[in-house]
Amino acid sequence: FCLSSAIIVYRLPWTWKCSKLLMKFIHAGLNTIAMILAIVSMVAVFDYHNARNIPNMYSLHSWIGLTAVIFYSLQLFLGFAVFLLPFAPVPLRAALMPIHVYSGLTIFATVIATALMGITEKLIFSLKNPAYSASPPEATFVNSLGLLLVVFGAFILWMASRPHWKRPPEENAKVLQPIGGTPEGTEAESTMAGGSNADKSDLRINSEAARKQNLKLDEAGQRSTM
Amino acid sequence: FCLSSAIIVYRLPWTWKCSKLLMKFIHAGLNTIAMILAIVSMVAVFDYHNARNIPNMYSLHSWIGLTAVIFYSLQLFLGFAVFLLPFAPVPLRAALMPIHVYSGLTIFATVIATALMGITEKLIFSLKNPAYSASPPEATFVNSLGLLLVVFGAFILWMASRPHWKRPPEENAKVLQPIGGTPEGTEAESTMAGGSNADKSDLRINSEAARKQNLKLDEAGQRSTM
Repeated sequence: FCLSSAIIVYRLPWTWKCSKLLMKFIHAGLNTIAMILAIVSMVAVFDYHNARNIPNMYSLHSWIGLTAVIFYSLQLFLGFAVFLLPFAPVPLRAALMPIHVYSGLTIFATVIATALMGITEKLIFSLKNPAYSASPPEATFVNSLGLLLVVFGAFILWMASRPHWKRPPEENAKVLQPIGGTPEGTEAESTMAGGSNADKSDLRINSEAARKQNLKLDEAGQRSTM
Repeated sequence: FCLSSAIIVYRLPWTWKCSKLLMKFIHAGLNTIAMILAIVSMVAVFDYHNARNIPNMYSLHSWIGLTAVIFYSLQLFLGFAVFLLPFAPVPLRAALMPIHVYSGLTIFATVIATALMGITEKLIFSLKNPAYSASPPEATFVNSLGLLLVVFGAFILWMASRPHWKRPPEENAKVLQPIGGTPEGTEAESTMAGGSNADKSDLRINSEAARKQNLKLDEAGQRSTM
């Protein structure tokens, strides 16, 4: 269940020196690895259930987990087709980026919830001689791990929604430096958040007006990296 | 476990005609009601456990649930002290707003995860004669409710992170109308997201520079509503 932990690792200032395309590949590669791990673990679960004559897909954990995996593969496929392949036009990228970011973070949160349900099930089913309700050391230990998983998830969502950890745009990076409200500065800020670059994981908030304005700016920025 | 459903209801265009202070009161009031419901349900759980000689606080569900309630009461207290009482200076409001919004949404997601764990526990413990794993109609029904809860949570988070459903600022509402990059328009957009208004539930992304610039604008906007 740590399959989605590596999604947002590239949101680090020291990666801003790397090219945008490289970062896109790392983002896509990490998610592909996570997807493969998810499929492997699902096959393992079905094999385990079949070997022990346990019915498949009966629990809420399995329902929500399967839903998350289906949406995750859709996300991966769409992300690959729109943001990595060079065919999608910039307005389409710009329109899909906020949805891509929202889906990614929501899937991430759902995966954590699924893991927590899986831990709960496992503890109830496995701890029998001193039951789960008797709080044996294993129960306390695994509960602590579950709590840490929530803290970890909250921290990743914090990172993904902070502006300071956001990769500055290629074109306007230098314009961002001066503090203050010059028109150039504000344009750069809006472009940064306009949403047509695949490596900006962010719950971006923007006004419709500002976004429309920035499509043109983004077009120029995008060409240099494709 | 529907205690947090009413948090973001006021993020609707038809409420934008109401005064900001009224909306703050509704936001605070709804959360206070949710907090009271949470406390009542926790007391009920402890009473139920004690009456049946079931240990308290042994499960991951209870650990994460209690953590969420503690953070929720902290959130409520801080929100009341900083954003509702008229004593906090505007820079403090501006600095705490992104944290308030992030905490609120993270607590909301954690509450949904806690509910899902609670449903999982309840189904395992309650369904015995046709066991949970035999998928009796009750299991399928409650699983569907759990899945709907995830969809509901995802929808609320979508609403809370879309710019279109964001209440426009009192002062600059009219400046927002023209589409395009006039300096006034961009200023208004940034101010809208600057974060010093308690009724803007949003994972706001902003550049440090733009935020600093907007503190002065917000000061002017804030005075008229306090």
